[in-house]
Amino acid sequence: MLMSALKPLGELENAAEFQARHIGPDAADEAGMLSVIGAASRRALIEAIVPASIKRSVGMALPAALTEAQALAELKTVAAQNKVLKSYIGQGYYDTLTPGVILRNILENPAWYTAYTPYQAEISQGRMEALVNFQTMVCDLTGMAIANSSMLDEATSAAEAMTLAARVGKSKSQLFFVADDVLPQTLEVVRTRAEPLGITVQVGPAAEAAASGCFAALLQYPGVNGEIRALQPIADALHAQGALLIAAADLLALTLLKAPGEQGADIAVGTSQRFGMPMCNGGPHAAYIACKDEFKRNLPGRLVGVSVDTHGNPAYRLALQTREQHIRREKATSNICTAQVLPAVVASMYAVYHGPQGLKRIAQRVASYTALLAKLLGDQKGNGFFDTVEVSTGAQTDAILARAVAAGMNFRRASAGSITISLDETTTRADLQAILAVFDKTADFAAFENGVESGIPAALQRTSSFLTHPVFNTHHSETEMLRYLRALADKDLALDRTMIPLGSCTMKLNATSEMIPITWPEFAGVHPFAPHDQLRGYELLNTQLTSWLCQATGYAGISLQPNAGSQGEYAGLLAIKAWHESRGEGHRKICLIPESAHGTNPASAQMVGMQVVVTKCDKEGNIDLDDLRAKCELHSQSLAAIMITYPSTYGVFDTHVKEICQLVKSHGGRVYVDGANMNALVGVAAPGEFGGDVSHLNLHKTFCIPHGGGGPGVGPVCVVADLVPFLPTHRAAGYVSETAIGAVSAAPLGNAAVLPISWMYVRMMGADGLTAATETAILSANYVAARLSDAYDIHFSGNIEGVKGGGVAHECILDLRPLKDTSGVSAEDVAKRLIDYGFHAPTLSFPVAGTLMVEPTESESKFELDRFCDAMLQIRAEIAKVEAGVEAGGWSREDNPLVNAPHTAESLLKSEWTHGYSREEAAYPVASLRRQKYWVPVGRVDNVYGDRNLFCSCVPLSEYEKA
Amino acid sequence: MLMSALKPLGELENAAEFQARHIGPDAADEAGMLSVIGAASRRALIEAIVPASIKRSVGMALPAALTEAQALAELKTVAAQNKVLKSYIGQGYYDTLTPGVILRNILENPAWYTAYTPYQAEISQGRMEALVNFQTMVCDLTGMAIANSSMLDEATSAAEAMTLAARVGKSKSQLFFVADDVLPQTLEVVRTRAEPLGITVQVGPAAEAAASGCFAALLQYPGVNGEIRALQPIADALHAQGALLIAAADLLALTLLKAPGEQGADIAVGTSQRFGMPMCNGGPHAAYIACKDEFKRNLPGRLVGVSVDTHGNPAYRLALQTREQHIRREKATSNICTAQVLPAVVASMYAVYHGPQGLKRIAQRVASYTALLAKLLGDQKGNGFFDTVEVSTGAQTDAILARAVAAGMNFRRASAGSITISLDETTTRADLQAILAVFDKTADFAAFENGVESGIPAALQRTSSFLTHPVFNTHHSETEMLRYLRALADKDLALDRTMIPLGSCTMKLNATSEMIPITWPEFAGVHPFAPHDQLRGYELLNTQLTSWLCQATGYAGISLQPNAGSQGEYAGLLAIKAWHESRGEGHRKICLIPESAHGTNPASAQMVGMQVVVTKCDKEGNIDLDDLRAKCELHSQSLAAIMITYPSTYGVFDTHVKEICQLVKSHGGRVYVDGANMNALVGVAAPGEFGGDVSHLNLHKTFCIPHGGGGPGVGPVCVVADLVPFLPTHRAAGYVSETAIGAVSAAPLGNAAVLPISWMYVRMMGADGLTAATETAILSANYVAARLSDAYDIHFSGNIEGVKGGGVAHECILDLRPLKDTSGVSAEDVAKRLIDYGFHAPTLSFPVAGTLMVEPTESESKFELDRFCDAMLQIRAEIAKVEAGVEAGGWSREDNPLVNAPHTAESLLKSEWTHGYSREEAAYPVASLRRQKYWVPVGRVDNVYGDRNLFCSCVPLSEYEKA
Repeated sequence: MLMSALKPLGELENAAEFQARHIGPDAADEAGMLSVIGAASRRALIEAIVPASIKRSVGMALPAALTEAQALAELKTVAAQNKVLKSYIGQGYYDTLTPGVILRNILENPAWYTAYTPYQAEISQGRMEALVNFQTMVCDLTGMAIANSSMLDEATSAAEAMTLAARVGKSKSQLFFVADDVLPQTLEVVRTRAEPLGITVQVGPAAEAAASGCFAALLQYPGVNGEIRALQPIADALHAQGALLIAAADLLALTLLKAPGEQGADIAVGTSQRFGMPMCNGGPHAAYIACKDEFKRNLPGRLVGVSVDTHGNPAYRLALQTREQHIRREKATSNICTAQVLPAVVASMYAVYHGPQGLKRIAQRVASYTALLAKLLGDQKGNGFFDTVEVSTGAQTDAILARAVAAGMNFRRASAGSITISLDETTTRADLQAILAVFDKTADFAAFENGVESGIPAALQRTSSFLTHPVFNTHHSETEMLRYLRALADKDLALDRTMIPLGSCTMKLNATSEMIPITWPEFAGVHPFAPHDQLRGYELLNTQLTSWLCQATGYAGISLQPNAGSQGEYAGLLAIKAWHESRGEGHRKICLIPESAHGTNPASAQMVGMQVVVTKCDKEGNIDLDDLRAKCELHSQSLAAIMITYPSTYGVFDTHVKEICQLVKSHGGRVYVDGANMNALVGVAAPGEFGGDVSHLNLHKTFCIPHGGGGPGVGPVCVVADLVPFLPTHRAAGYVSETAIGAVSAAPLGNAAVLPISWMYVRMMGADGLTAATETAILSANYVAARLSDAYDIHFSGNIEGVKGGGVAHECILDLRPLKDTSGVSAEDVAKRLIDYGFHAPTLSFPVAGTLMVEPTESESKFELDRFCDAMLQIRAEIAKVEAGVEAGGWSREDNPLVNAPHTAESLLKSEWTHGYSREEAAYPVASLRRQKYWVPVGRVDNVYGDRNLFCSCVPLSEYEKA
Repeated sequence: MLMSALKPLGELENAAEFQARHIGPDAADEAGMLSVIGAASRRALIEAIVPASIKRSVGMALPAALTEAQALAELKTVAAQNKVLKSYIGQGYYDTLTPGVILRNILENPAWYTAYTPYQAEISQGRMEALVNFQTMVCDLTGMAIANSSMLDEATSAAEAMTLAARVGKSKSQLFFVADDVLPQTLEVVRTRAEPLGITVQVGPAAEAAASGCFAALLQYPGVNGEIRALQPIADALHAQGALLIAAADLLALTLLKAPGEQGADIAVGTSQRFGMPMCNGGPHAAYIACKDEFKRNLPGRLVGVSVDTHGNPAYRLALQTREQHIRREKATSNICTAQVLPAVVASMYAVYHGPQGLKRIAQRVASYTALLAKLLGDQKGNGFFDTVEVSTGAQTDAILARAVAAGMNFRRASAGSITISLDETTTRADLQAILAVFDKTADFAAFENGVESGIPAALQRTSSFLTHPVFNTHHSETEMLRYLRALADKDLALDRTMIPLGSCTMKLNATSEMIPITWPEFAGVHPFAPHDQLRGYELLNTQLTSWLCQATGYAGISLQPNAGSQGEYAGLLAIKAWHESRGEGHRKICLIPESAHGTNPASAQMVGMQVVVTKCDKEGNIDLDDLRAKCELHSQSLAAIMITYPSTYGVFDTHVKEICQLVKSHGGRVYVDGANMNALVGVAAPGEFGGDVSHLNLHKTFCIPHGGGGPGVGPVCVVADLVPFLPTHRAAGYVSETAIGAVSAAPLGNAAVLPISWMYVRMMGADGLTAATETAILSANYVAARLSDAYDIHFSGNIEGVKGGGVAHECILDLRPLKDTSGVSAEDVAKRLIDYGFHAPTLSFPVAGTLMVEPTESESKFELDRFCDAMLQIRAEIAKVEAGVEAGGWSREDNPLVNAPHTAESLLKSEWTHGYSREEAAYPVASLRRQKYWVPVGRVDNVYGDRNLFCSCVPLSEYEKA
């Protein structure tokens, strides 16, 4: 019998299998793309595009790629080092039951988690409805007039409330008062944030708030040890002297407690974590901020509002965009870009699913069990309680904490001689018995069957109704809930249906194998303030991921604590500030920022108390070296830093970057390289090597954390060796450092539970895979530029000989301004027309007004790139018909498929058709749309109407009936 | 401080919370529905509808309901009793890596798992495309001309192949030859099936097949011990004497082996389990059957074919329906109703995801590792091997098996003195070392890095290509795969978007908490032939679930082995047959079946060798007692059984059911109560109590297993005490019984891995919840009848005084025949028009031609019931416009929105509109459709064209271009 030799084992084992799953184009596609561009090979193209001067000197020392199954198995061993105990720690984090229908159909559903921030309102109506539900829920429960669509965590929300109060209050005081039973992590972040702004933080008993002479006071409701304190008297006293009251309030407690807004609070903050999001070692969770109506135009963060579309139907869109950092730049009052959309959607749907009655029942159960426990353990304080009892344990404190751990549960050390026990919706009778057993007691439930006396003071019991809108009172059967979630998801265009080729914010594949670990109980089920020896798995994850990211960036140290890019940027600038101060050069406060920078850069600089000086760019988008030199010299004695983005936000590899870094350093400044475009560098060039001192990354972009519809993100801050001592610490979680800046997030690892996503990505790609991803991203951008360059002007191309399209980095800017002149068609019209073609538009009018910036990523197949290019070419042909005009058989400037885009099915099916183009030209401009078509749910949304008539809560059903 | 007492603990703990999640209408809805019906209370309605004579004497003794979290926790303790070892058992079941994108987006996605069997072709194009991919994959790999869309398991598929061969072959022999290395479980099922049909099964060496004088022979390729045998010589010898060759072939092996169709095989069978479906203790998996072109009209089971829609575009639909049991009844050659659609979709997508090259690489890795193992353990046989080595272990056999278990792995005992080790795609180098360690050996992989000599004989190595259609060569990046799955899912209407109110086949909620456990590794990861002490969890699950189902049905014993209702029916009739034979009354072969029975009943009866005698029904759908009495007397000496459905397929509670049962028993027959409508009985009446001797259930209907687009199902067979000894056993799995009938499924617990769904349902509902579900199902059907009774004739209503609609059971039949006369509009037109309204149509023309049978279930909210009733009333108004005619301002019989339904968006957007009704009348007959609209992907499908031009493989892309 003849046998033939099979292939080499290594080839059959295919350890790098994931590369081909992550990277869209295969070898044949790549060859086809290169031939259109006119490049001999991918490598040759990269040589031509990336300046030789910045190329990495050595490769990335990363462990060899594993298959998906192997990587999951290895990560499981990491996860297994976390110990999942029952948590009674409280302190802002509680165990919760995520309804299965929400877990499977939101958290684990790409239609929700791969969606982008709802800048394109028309294709984001589903998640914006969910966010309006969130806003309504927060307003109802807190009794405030307006709430935004979520904040990063309770601590940063409190810090934002502080600065909001400073802006809108009448007091001239620079003192901020924090009650002594505010969550310790909130206090720490508030202190970090206050210092650079010159605000003094004073801590004391809540009753002393007004006497402190503060401009505002922050109270916890209920307090960290469980106490429930009447807010009204304190509010009155504060108001009497022009100061404001900020209440940090627990949403579940508010179903039973008189709302802050009913007791004079001006601002309310808190977290929605316990509404269905697991503890996740501290994040991601959606925090909230809400305020009185009079402050609404000063509210930080994202706000979803109701407006109308072109047909007069209600339609959602992001409201009051003009107050945000990307518009106001250094005049911005906050650098917040993202929210925590996915966790906010979960929390809102938890409320939709349970409804007001269901939430109240959960809260009453928690309150009953807590009252029962208080009775059996001996009641503690006079101020009442909701879910937390404080037990005096004296000299036994350590022993009791240890006994609890041995019995599989964590209590919280409240003081040297007391502990607190906080219950939650998962607590059962068996749990209560187990708790009591630690104290050698048992419960006789029969004695309590008919109800337990509430621990809530009568005067503070809630009497007002909440969540009265039908949406919270309809979808209570699982079938109805499922259909509601599906209906909302179907309205939106996410990565599961189209590329999202947003320049500077593009989305690559969020692989299932990356997503699977985040809901493992070992990662999702732990409390951020559990004893450190229970969190060894996260410690290892942190060590490994930061070391890999150091390899990728060329930096010496990284903190994963910042839970958004903006926070990483803030932490990085703080580290530079601390470094200058450590050398006695605290006067260095000038921060140079090129005019092409993303608006977050100047906003962050002002938040750390730096003074922004804008430097010029040339017409290729490169930094004007002469201007920079002049400004360096002018500010030589006070230069703190320069903030550059590389490749630039114009999508250009500035060949002078090393020179620029040297120049700034020679004047005593440090170099901040915004890592927004790190996906064009990984494996090719390292900012820590070519001159950067600090960078932040966006793990949700370069390292595959899904966008979640606008969060969660992770914004690691990366620094060179001499800045490592200044990376953020977390003293409230028991970490010690002399030099480190304070905590910038509520939890030590920020949005810890999504870090496994990036871990999996790096572990499955290996150094070769990551480099191939970068090179393919550049290849794909150049392919798009090459295919579109005859039809559109490619802005800021490199004019490289032989490269069709001129050569761009990882994104390309299509200049539509000339077409506006010849046809009246705007970049926005093109963006909206792309919806009719089934696409999420590229970035509109950033960094250059009147342009579209396209960033396709390596994950998009040639098929999808071609579908996009075909659409853009057909759109160019449509614009040509407008240029030709009606008399030449074309279309008028006022009535054409571009200015009327996007087209709803309803608008196309009207019996009377009055347009100068046909229904079919509107709906099916390319043939493939006849086989597969996304139907947009609303016509173009009127932004101005919405801002003039600001309304940010659930739409009364009558509005739909009217329309 | 004043405190107020909170509510009773029991109320706050709300143990029965799941009832309100499962049952759609809440208390207010129920009151509204009752008032429309005219009933005072739900209880009063049930009293009026359900005959007093059959009411349960005692309630169901079930454990009290648990919350979703508690039930999951309890089931976890059951699951934990299974031991998950590495399996090298083979024998038809292999470990596999389910690609994450398939796991999350098919197996765990309600858009796929809640879909119904694709009877309504237009709203099932997505899953039918997936099934055509499956059929193409099977044809390509086996080299056969045509394959169906899946079978229940390899063993029953082999049995069906046997009867197919008996029908189509030229031989008059009654002997069926089975090679001695066919899978033991296949042999056992074949024996069970052969006996009642008078077929003799002979087992022997494959080489002796032709010499046996058989009509057909079944060979395993490769054999159970790994041997690969040339099929061609055996095929030639069989053909020479008019006999046929059936090859049971492994799909993964076929990527490297010469296909059965290339070696003269007439029929091929097998399983697709190892294409991504976990072992699941034996099921559910999609088996396959494929055959030569000349036998295609005799192929059993479901077959998806390509036809055209009314616009001439390619469109899928179920082909050759007329050959199926529901049409041919006792003349049917198989009783198969369902397929294993969800596992078939998974397998097909596994092939789409890996493509031919990827599959081949996996197979080559398995083959290489196996060859390496064979070399190191000493090669065994001369016939070559793919994934299995047989090792002579002599007297050490037990010891080695035990050492393997101790090391965490299972080998298979092949004989008293040998074991086999079967590898799979999950096998790694570390696994090989662990296997070798059991034999005190190690591998030096360096010696094999350049490839291993294949164990496959050169003459049997595959040279032909396969999976050449673009669909298998395009979606290889995860992004592309994800979008393909989403695009297909979006074409279909499943329970996540609409009620599926199919009379007799309705779908209730498939709750997420019920679905979560099925992918737990403890349930999904075990081999059905693992040692019994590793399967204690399944044993407990079986014990608990059967005892609960006994409570629900009133029976004494239940087998969960049948993996579809049809198989349960078959097993039940076999048990009756065995019982008669055990009493020396084997001559009793007459089976009485009322004319209203589902076609499966007579088909099953003929399969067990019974002779069907049809009895008459009166015009209310009740059994004609006089006719029954006459037939009982006529056949008194040979009466075996009666098969009745209760409530009847007409949706009627026959008040004489007890009398009927008594009558049949008095003539020596046994009573088979088809449990198809058990969902109208649970908690209210028990067939085991009112006279049934045997029933089968459909867990996918009454007990919440999702329909999966047409499978998996579970068809437990339930019997009274004296029939318990005759329930099926499974000797191949080591179970012993003197009296039991043989195995009816390949695995002892059939579709074991979906049983947790029903376990969870019963555990969360408790006795009260299950009873409430039944009563609400009856309430909802009566509500629909009441709301529609002025517009439509309700067929077979009870004419109950004061009950609007007349009183129906759990479903109601709308008689459309009078409207056909007045308007020309057919029941099918109405069914298709419902698609335009966003609904899955009710059951069409069953049990009465020209009617629609509506069964809404308890899970549908009043909102959805009203949406449906509103649609039906609006459709009635549309029919009235046709009745009025064009001259009266109405529509013509030839051109109206009903006969042209369903309307694709494309057809409505044609610039030229030639219809007598408007686009808006077609698309938006009710206002709510303007806010939410399902767009059907194809127009009405032409069934006749498809059957005349039978084509059941992937459509060449050129077909789309033509259209």
